[in-house]
Order: sequence, then C-alpha cells, then structure tokens
Amino acid sequence: MKAISILGSTGSIGTQTLEIAQEFPDQFNVVAISAGKNLDLLLQQIQTHSPELIAIADKSLIPELRTRLQSLSKIKSGEYSPEIAGGAEGLNKAASWDHADLVITGIVGCAGLLPTLAAIKAGKDIALANKETLIAAGPVVLPELKKSGSRLLPADSEHSAIFQCLQGTPWSENARLSTGIPTPGLRNIHLTASGGAFRDWSTAELEKATVKDATSHPNWSMGRKITVDSATLMNKGLEVIEAHYLFGIGYDQIEIVIHPQSIIHSMVELEDSSVLAQLGWPDMKLPILYCMSWPKRLKTPWRRLKLTELQELTFRAPDTAKYPCMELAYSAGKTGGTMPAVLNAANEEAVAQFLEEKIHFLDIPKVIESACEKHKNDVKKNPDLNDVILVDDWARKEVRFHSNSLDK
Amino acid sequence: MKAISILGSTGSIGTQTLEIAQEFPDQFNVVAISAGKNLDLLLQQIQTHSPELIAIADKSLIPELRTRLQSLSKIKSGEYSPEIAGGAEGLNKAASWDHADLVITGIVGCAGLLPTLAAIKAGKDIALANKETLIAAGPVVLPELKKSGSRLLPADSEHSAIFQCLQGTPWSENARLSTGIPTPGLRNIHLTASGGAFRDWSTAELEKATVKDATSHPNWSMGRKITVDSATLMNKGLEVIEAHYLFGIGYDQIEIVIHPQSIIHSMVELEDSSVLAQLGWPDMKLPILYCMSWPKRLKTPWRRLKLTELQELTFRAPDTAKYPCMELAYSAGKTGGTMPAVLNAANEEAVAQFLEEKIHFLDIPKVIESACEKHKNDVKKNPDLNDVILVDDWARKEVRFHSNSLDK
Repeated sequence: MKAISILGSTGSIGTQTLEIAQEFPDQFNVVAISAGKNLDLLLQQIQTHSPELIAIADKSLIPELRTRLQSLSKIKSGEYSPEIAGGAEGLNKAASWDHADLVITGIVGCAGLLPTLAAIKAGKDIALANKETLIAAGPVVLPELKKSGSRLLPADSEHSAIFQCLQGTPWSENARLSTGIPTPGLRNIHLTASGGAFRDWSTAELEKATVKDATSHPNWSMGRKITVDSATLMNKGLEVIEAHYLFGIGYDQIEIVIHPQSIIHSMVELEDSSVLAQLGWPDMKLPILYCMSWPKRLKTPWRRLKLTELQELTFRAPDTAKYPCMELAYSAGKTGGTMPAVLNAANEEAVAQFLEEKIHFLDIPKVIESACEKHKNDVKKNPDLNDVILVDDWARKEVRFHSNSLDK
Repeated sequence: MKAISILGSTGSIGTQTLEIAQEFPDQFNVVAISAGKNLDLLLQQIQTHSPELIAIADKSLIPELRTRLQSLSKIKSGEYSPEIAGGAEGLNKAASWDHADLVITGIVGCAGLLPTLAAIKAGKDIALANKETLIAAGPVVLPELKKSGSRLLPADSEHSAIFQCLQGTPWSENARLSTGIPTPGLRNIHLTASGGAFRDWSTAELEKATVKDATSHPNWSMGRKITVDSATLMNKGLEVIEAHYLFGIGYDQIEIVIHPQSIIHSMVELEDSSVLAQLGWPDMKLPILYCMSWPKRLKTPWRRLKLTELQELTFRAPDTAKYPCMELAYSAGKTGGTMPAVLNAANEEAVAQFLEEKIHFLDIPKVIESACEKHKNDVKKNPDLNDVILVDDWARKEVRFHSNSLDK
C-alpha cells in the first residue's frame, strides 16, 4: 500500500490521480490533498477518500470548508477527523505530510514550485506533473534532490515515455531516478508533439486565432493553460528544458518531432543506434499510474492500443518559423541560470493575457522574446531560490507592461 | 573482451557478426568459426580473425583447407596454428569451444539444432539466429537451458526488439534470460511483419509467382530460405513459435501486425496497457550487436533513424486467407510436442522444392498442411531429441513424396 499526497487535487492531474486511487484501492490510499478553491469538488473527494490532511490554498475558504465538512456523516459520527490547513503553509504541509510515500504535484505553473521544493526537502518521492518546478528552478532543485534523496518520477506523458524506455538501459541508479545525471548509453531524445490546436493552420489563419480555437486540443484533454502552450508549441519547448534537467542530457541531443496522432509519446535513441519508444492512447492516466506503481506495473482494464485500427502514424519536422516558442525555449535553456525562469514566467503571464483577450495569439512569442532579451545581461548562472522568485516576478511585470503597449 | 564462436561464419548472420567484431576490435575476439563449404570466404575470414578453431561441415574439404592455409604468411611463419576440425563433430567442437563466451548460431534450418544443443550443454551464452532450434525442439531445449545455465539471447530482429523492450520490465532474472518462464507484467507481444515479397500481390497474381519473385525481399537482405519464408509469411509463423518459447507467453497473447516499412521491429504490451517498441532501420547488425554487447550497449557510427524522413509508419492486420502459413504455425504451436518440428521440417523441405522449381509457390502451405494433418495422431507431447529427429526426417520424406504427386 502506497500512501499518496496530491497537490492540486481538483485539477486535471489531481482528479485523474484520485480516479486511479479508486481503481486500485488495495494499492494506494490518499493521505493528503490540497486544492485551490473548488470546494464542491474537494468535498466530494474528501467524502470518497477520507484524507488525513486537507489543505486549501485560498485560506479565506477554511471556515466554509469546516462548516460544510460537518454535513459528512463520518465527520458527524466522529469516526473521521481530518486536519485542515490553508495557504502556502497548508500546501507545504500537504507536500511534506509525514505518512505520504509519494507526492503528486499537479499544481499548474510556478505556483507549484514552493510546495514541490517542500516535498523534495522532506525526501518524498515525487510524481512531477508540475514541469515549471524544473524549468524555472532546475539549478535550485537538482542540488536539493541530491541532498534529500528525493526521487523525481516524470508524470508528463513525454517524459514518462522516455523514463519507461530508459528502464532497460544500463545506467546508474541515480540517473534512473532523474536527478540530472547523464544516462549512460543515451544518445538522443525525440520528444513527440501533436502540433497542437493549430497544427494545420497557415500563418495567415493564425492571425485570426481566438481563445476558443487555442483552447481546443485535437488529442489531449488538459487544462486551459497547457492547451494554449500546446497551440504555441511552447509546451514542447518547456518539455525540452524539463527533459534536459530530468535526464541530464544536452540541448543538442533533444529533438522535437511532430506526430499528429499522439500515439508514440516519445522515443530514446541509444548509442548503438537502437530507438525505443513508448506508445499508448493520449490519456494521462497511464503516465500518472506509472509514477504511482513504479518500478512495478499494475494490471488495468484500460482500452488496448490497436495500431491496425489506427493504420498509420505520421511524423514531420516542426515548423520553427511558424512556431517561434520552441526556439525561444532552446535558447533560454542553453543560456541556463535564471533565463528559463524568465521564459517560463513570461509565458505564463502572456498566456494569461491571451486568455483574458488582452493580447493576440501571435503576440505570445513576441512578448516572451522581449522579456528574455531584456534579461540577457542580468542572467545569474547559479541562482538561489530567491533569485528565481525575483526574476519570475520581474518577468511577469515586464510582460504586463509590454502587452499594455501593444496595438490591439 | 568477449570471446566469440560463430556457427555458420560464411552465411548472412556470420559475415555480419565478423563485420561487427572488426568494428569493435577491443570488445570482441573471434576464437572459433565454422562454415559449410565456402572455402574462399572462410580463408579470408581466417586471415582477418585468426580463430583458434576452424570447423568445416563438409569433412572432405579439410585437405584443401589445410593446403590453402599454408599460403597464409602467419601460418608459414608458425606464429598462428589453428586447430582444424570437420563434420558434425567439428561443428559441436566450435559450439562448445572452451575459450568462447558467446556462441552465434547462424546456421540455417534444422542443421543448426545439434550444434546449438551442444553449445547449450556446454553452458555457453548463445546468440540465437537459428530459430529452428527452438521451433523444432523447444521441449528438448528448455530443460537443457535450465540444467546448464546457458542463456539464449535472441538475434532475430523481432525477438531482439521484444528482448530490448523487456529489459525495463520488473521480472525475474530467469525470464529475462529467455528460458521460457513467463515474464511478469507482459500482456501481449505484437510481432511486426513486412508482409514479404508479395505483400501487395493479389491471390491471382500469386499463382504466377516465380522463384525470382519470392527471393526478392522488399526491406531485408537475408538468405534465400528465410526470404521465401517471408513471402509465405511462414517466417512470421515460425517467429510466433519462437517467441512462445523465448518469452514463456501463450499463443493467444502473440499478435502479428503487418508493418510494410519494417521500422518498428516488434512491440510489447504490458499489463498496465503501456506499449513499448523498438525501432531501427531494417539491418540485422543491430540485433546481432545487441546479443554481443548485452547487457551493455556499444557506441556505433551507424546510420541514425530519422522518422521525419520516413514520414509515415503504417499497420494493417494480416490476411490469413491469402497466407495460410501463419495459421498453420499457430495451430502447430498450440498442439505442441513434436508438431512444430513437423511444421518446420515440412516447411524447409517445401521451400527447397520450391527453390528447385519442383512445386509452385502456392503449394508450399498445402504440402505443409498435409504433413501436419498426417502427424496429428502421432504427436509426442514430451519428445526427446531422438523423437524430434525422427519426425523431422519423416516430415521431409512426406513432403518429397507428396510434392511428387502434385500436378505440375
């Protein structure tokens, strides 16, 4: 029995994790959950899973949460009395909950950074669905991993594919557990990309892209922010940086391949020229489950992949002119230090502005590029957490300022 | 440094193994080789590799071999004096050569059975390119593997793909080393098939298939017998039986997928529904190298796989009506005991008759089916080696008799 703590239980990753926990009641029990502000869903989850700790990011909701909990019969009867915590402190408590074996970090964006660091410091195994943690703070996170012995298991489907393929390579225990140490025998990573909502749109058509267009992903059902990131292909760029830190591999050894069917989730190319790939339907449940069951695999009744039904898998090189975000990410990654944090924060803010219809879809890369350009001479090569938080804050303000100055 | 013995050094597998040994002189040295009768090539190989033992299947060629060896300067000077052996005894000597760490069994057909068994009895690690050993004599081979601790490493590209994908699954050491013990967590094997020379031919066109047509493989460069087996899809059927014994998996868990590009060499489907695949160009050197380097991987300068150049991989279900050999193999495999030996011998003989233009391409499955049908009531469930040799002999005679009675 593995005890699970979930950061972001009401989000896309969190709800799927809870579904898995329900599907395998003899394998997993949920000991801590934290949510942002969706009290209705949180209460349903508490009713089903009875976690020992409930954390709510929005502290002001604690009184309402307490009141509504009183209506649960198991609380009324006194057989269940969870601890309740709120705010950043509450999130950190959930991240480092004593009874938890594995922490699922399903909080979107840079907000997940501090609780994920708390989980690392507590030496927890982590199912990393919050890629921003590594992207913004790789140089801060990697030494902490070494110190605490915490292990990062990738929940992103692409990185899970790579992780699954790498299980069979002869490597050091450390590299297998993703602490940024190069994996012996690994020559290249091929990150597959669906191409996002606009993969078949011309640049002219992209000029008319609306929020609704950008938030409709052809293959994956995900949150709004990541769906826009898929449309700009920034998501793939961020995954390149994530892969760099997770697998200790150089940027020149990470390639992006457009694969519209999203069936091959990614590939590793080994030094003898053999390529290993992991395949499946586009469904986050499998990579989440693998984080939870690793190194074992659990038997599921999930829909089996049938390549003879699909008939074809296609591949093409990405169009870097149409999608400048990929190059921005490679460039920020290669600069390193605080630059990926600026890229990530600028992107988060740009996407937020786009979702609020304050900037146009094609402005997203422009405002990010401008922020990175301005940061060029201020890059800190070996930042501490404070440096990361400062540049994150600076980049967001920069984007807000810049986007206000754009022609609408 | 790994010491290699090669059975069938002048064949397709043998020559490629020697190329690899030349490419990695600090990794491998060739200590024993055996050939059939191609003295010219054998002498070149001896010149390059200076094996301690040279075996020649055709004993009558020993005097000529000795004479021609005298022309090699290193022999004249006395710095090199190999042992020479001939016939079945010579092959067995090469198979169990004391200094050899790994024996490559590149002899085609049932002729490879006895020397492979000799290697197993000597406790050697074996790169199994001779699939007939397991197909004809699985029930004899498996107990011998257990007894001697010999390990079978699959050199067939499909089984190598499965073996590579299975490296990362949590399994017992025994299952990993292919002794027929079920692999935990393995749900299904998807064996890919190019479809062979006639994959786009109609049944009407097949009636006009010539020897030349059947020996031209679209993707793989291989020996004549196996190229015809690819055209009938019997090769895939034989691989199904091979996979059954190698990975301890039931026939209902082995599927054949037509994949005309031969890029995905096979796939494993795990119990959690994840699918792992191994990809590469259709080139036997990689699976052979993996047998030689396993569990390590060696760095090669070989051509890198580029899916963006290929653009598409396609898949379809096999046409069992057009290619009855697959069903014959599944059926023989499920019957077990001596039946796969009959299937294999009948196929070898039928292909030989076809290559001699004594029977038509479409007669191949017919004469095999007839032999299997006649053997039905005589199947020995737990045969010993003698039983296997007897039914092999019987099936060949049966096919020769039957094919003489066919209308030409």
